[in-house]
Formats: sequence, structure tokens, C-alpha cells
Amino acid sequence: MKRVSLVQVGFGTVGGALIEQVVENRPLWRERFGIDVTIAAVAGRAGATIAGDARGIIDAELRQLVDRRRSGTGDPAHGSVAEALPGILQAGPTIVLDAAAGEGTVDIDVQALRLGAGVVLSNKAPLALPMSDPRSSALWAETSSTGRLKFEATCGAGLPVISTLQSLLDTGDRVREISGTLSGTFGAIFSAVGSGVHFSQAVKDAKAQGYTEPDPRDDLSGLDVARKGLILSRTMGNSIDLNDIEVHSLVPDHLADVSIDEFLNRLSEQDPDIARQADESAAAGLSLKYVM
Amino acid sequence: MKRVSLVQVGFGTVGGALIEQVVENRPLWRERFGIDVTIAAVAGRAGATIAGDARGIIDAELRQLVDRRRSGTGDPAHGSVAEALPGILQAGPTIVLDAAAGEGTVDIDVQALRLGAGVVLSNKAPLALPMSDPRSSALWAETSSTGRLKFEATCGAGLPVISTLQSLLDTGDRVREISGTLSGTFGAIFSAVGSGVHFSQAVKDAKAQGYTEPDPRDDLSGLDVARKGLILSRTMGNSIDLNDIEVHSLVPDHLADVSIDEFLNRLSEQDPDIARQADESAAAGLSLKYVM
Repeated sequence: MKRVSLVQVGFGTVGGALIEQVVENRPLWRERFGIDVTIAAVAGRAGATIAGDARGIIDAELRQLVDRRRSGTGDPAHGSVAEALPGILQAGPTIVLDAAAGEGTVDIDVQALRLGAGVVLSNKAPLALPMSDPRSSALWAETSSTGRLKFEATCGAGLPVISTLQSLLDTGDRVREISGTLSGTFGAIFSAVGSGVHFSQAVKDAKAQGYTEPDPRDDLSGLDVARKGLILSRTMGNSIDLNDIEVHSLVPDHLADVSIDEFLNRLSEQDPDIARQADESAAAGLSLKYVM
Repeated sequence: MKRVSLVQVGFGTVGGALIEQVVENRPLWRERFGIDVTIAAVAGRAGATIAGDARGIIDAELRQLVDRRRSGTGDPAHGSVAEALPGILQAGPTIVLDAAAGEGTVDIDVQALRLGAGVVLSNKAPLALPMSDPRSSALWAETSSTGRLKFEATCGAGLPVISTLQSLLDTGDRVREISGTLSGTFGAIFSAVGSGVHFSQAVKDAKAQGYTEPDPRDDLSGLDVARKGLILSRTMGNSIDLNDIEVHSLVPDHLADVSIDEFLNRLSEQDPDIARQADESAAAGLSLKYVM
């Protein structure tokens, strides 16, 4: 049976859920597609757990890794994905899944492509590097619809936004404009504001429900949405950088560097301004949203 | 350069636009994908125009075919796709595009699959045949995500509904429910009704704008929506037939067999009932729609 090895890089909420889905569904994939999907390595921030042989990490160990990570009792692994990758590739087709956040995994992604692996990103940061960074060229060279780097999950969550855009462009359509509320976090916050909740309370509620980053300013700054806009624009062939994008931040300058608690406490200073904008929108028959 | 031959079956609004898109975009496809896309045959109801050699029908003749068809001055072609298909297939990879309406093209679709061609349908009827029809099995056997029959355009127009559903199912998700307003015709009609237009007038307006079939009863009967529901359900692996689906027809029994003009004139008899439903919906803060 044909075998495909996965290397899971970034092992938080997304990475853990992905491992569980692989464990749960690979009997189906064996039966339906004749493909044996194994997990050759799982890498967190501290280090990686590497499988002993080509059969991959066994289900019981994968479940234990996920459980320990969730309960915070994981003893850190010490393997190195960078060192293990060439051997894993030699054993057969390999896909690196980068579900981390931030630029710390870019070198692994680039190495994987260079070695001939496929790379799948939910992590937006590698595709938002400055164009002048040579790693940016290495990654974007594989992003066409026939390339080895897939990044559907970076924009629009589970909706097929990237593949649809690529298909439109491949077949000859021209894009006039892309517009949308590309952030589930802002979506939740402004839905609440629209039904009368104070902005600061809506942010606290969204954080309590797990919709925001640990520091909600990472969402409210608009950086996450700007990265999505950048990825869509580059997918359309534009050579632009993050600082070419005008971002409307909802984090006041004087609250940019205080603690998270102080930020959340003092965010109510913004409530009147946001409420005024929401009221003006409602008076015009519209809803206040954070739009790209 | 790799060559792919297209056989265009069904040569109305959709088929004509498709031919124009191929003529316009194939220089792009040659350059970007190294694929030379030619049109080997164009078949309308009267007969087919077949290319003289593997280079396909030339652009000027294709444009003339489309123009003549639109102006209604086309002298009917007399070629037979069924007879030409084996020869076209021998020359290389071939895709049959069925943009007709109705079951008249089913035999061509089945023949094409049997000969090894790809088949792409916007025509819903072939996939809505009774399961007991052996041609139904022949078609559905090629509808998996790795099969040779593609039917994205049968549901949801340009939205990637079918491929998304297949991808969800392939990777192990289970579908609880699919719901939507799967008809652009009903969408236009009930948007108008929602803003106070009489139902009968909304139907006439939709017809005047080209949103309905020539006989609007083909839309209002719900058959078109039922076919889409059937295709989605069968894609999920259910073995059901059209008559297993409960359809709410907006065509009163006593107007089912009168002329189109009489139907449109007497449709206003339905206005009070539809208006009452729309008012009840609005009173509950809802909108009246035709939902699957």
C-alpha cells in the first residue's frame, strides 16, 4: 500500500486536533484511497518526537502526546525535525503540516520544499514575510495551483477561498475586488456590539470563549486580517509587503504595551466611540463590521 | 505541447459562453500550463459540427457558430457526435462538456465515459435519472473526487459546493444537514416579493430578465431544486430517486397544462396567498424564501 508520512510542526489547538483527525480517519483513507497515512514526527516548541521507523508514531503514543500537551504535563521532546527530515523523505512521500503561529517554523517549511516534500500551512506568518527575504521567494515559488505548498486554511478558515481564487485566475477570470469580514474574532465581537453589548465586554466574552489570541491585541491590531489580505493579494500575483497595507488598529497607542489585564480593564475607554459608530451604522440600515 | 480536445454538447446560453471563454483564454492556458485546448466538435439539437482534424475547429468558425446560434440564423449542422467520438478519443485526451438541459444527452455522456473521456456536466438531468436506469450507474460510478465525471456547475452555480462536499466526506467528516436557497430564480422572485412586489409580477420580471426557463413553470414546479437536492444526496452516498423527494410546487394543478401566456396571466390568483405568507414571515422577523 502506498504510504504518505506526515510531519506535524506546531502542536497547539490546531495541530492537536489535526493529529486526532488523522488517527481517527486513516482507516477510512486506507480503505477508500489505498493510502496509508502515518505520522513520522510531531514537533512542538521545545523539540520533536520522531518515529522510530517508517511505520510512524503509533496511535497510543500520539493520543498520549495530545493529552499531555493539553493538560500541560508533557515532558518536552528533544528530537530535531530539521535533522530527521532527510531520513523521513528518503522513506517516501512526505507532507509537512505547519500549524504553528509566527515565523519560527519558516526554515523547516523551506527545507521541506527543497527536499521535495509537500508543505501545508495554517500558519500565515511564513507567507507574510517581506518579499526581500529569500525564504519568501522559496515558499511563494510553490504556491501555484500545481505547486507543492498548500495554504487553504490561512484565509477563510474551512471555506475554500484560496483554491477558488486560484481556479478563477487559472481559467482566465480577472479579480476586480475582494471584500469580506475575514476574521472570526472580529465577527464575534461586532455581532455582539450590533446587539447592544459594550465593545470592551464583547472582547472579554470573545476571549473567554476562546475566539481570540491569548493577547486579544494580536487580533484587534488588525495584523491577522492584514496577513490574510497580503496572502490573497500575493496569490493574485501582486508583489507587495505587509507595510504596503493600510491597517485600522482597534488598539489605542497608549494601551499597546500595558499588561493584558490592564488592557482589558481600560478597553472600556473605547466603548463610546465604537458605540457611536455602531449607532450611525444602524441608523443608516447597516451593521458595523471589520471589513477587508 | 500536450493537447486536450473538448466536445461541446448543448449549445445554448451556457454552451455558447463556454466556447467564447475557451477561445479567449486558451493562449493563457498554453502559456501557463503548456496545454493546447482545442474544440473538436460542437453539438446542438439538430446535429454537430465536427473538426476536420486534430487541431480542432478554428476560432473564426467557432465565433461564427456562436453568433449564428444567437441570431437564430444558424444553418443546422448534420454531424454526429456519437459517430465522431471514437476518432476524437484516438487523437488524445478528450473532455465532453454537457451544457444541455434534459436527458437527451445521457447516451453521449455514457459513451464518452466508456471510451475513456472525461465528462463535465452543467446539465443536471443525467445525474437525476432513476437509479434503476443502467446509465445512472455508469455515470455515478465516475463521480467520486478521483472519477472522470465532474458536475460542480449542477449545484450552486459558480460556488464550489460539490468539490467542498466531496472533500469533507473524503477526509472523514459526516454531514448532518444541507440547507440553502439553491435556486437563483427563486432567489430573485422572493427578494422582489420581500420588497412588496406581487408574486405574479415578480415571476414576470424574472422571466423578462432571463432568470427563468422559457416556461417559468419549469422553475416554479421545484423540479430544478429537487434535482439539485438529489445530486447532493447521491453525492453523499444515498441511493434515492427524485420521487423520494417531497417537492413544494408553486404551480397550481389547474394551471399546469395551460399555455405560458395564460399561465402568466392567471398566476395573479396566487398573489394573495404568497403575500400572506410573506407578511407572516416579516411579522416574525423572517424572510419568505424557497429553501431546500
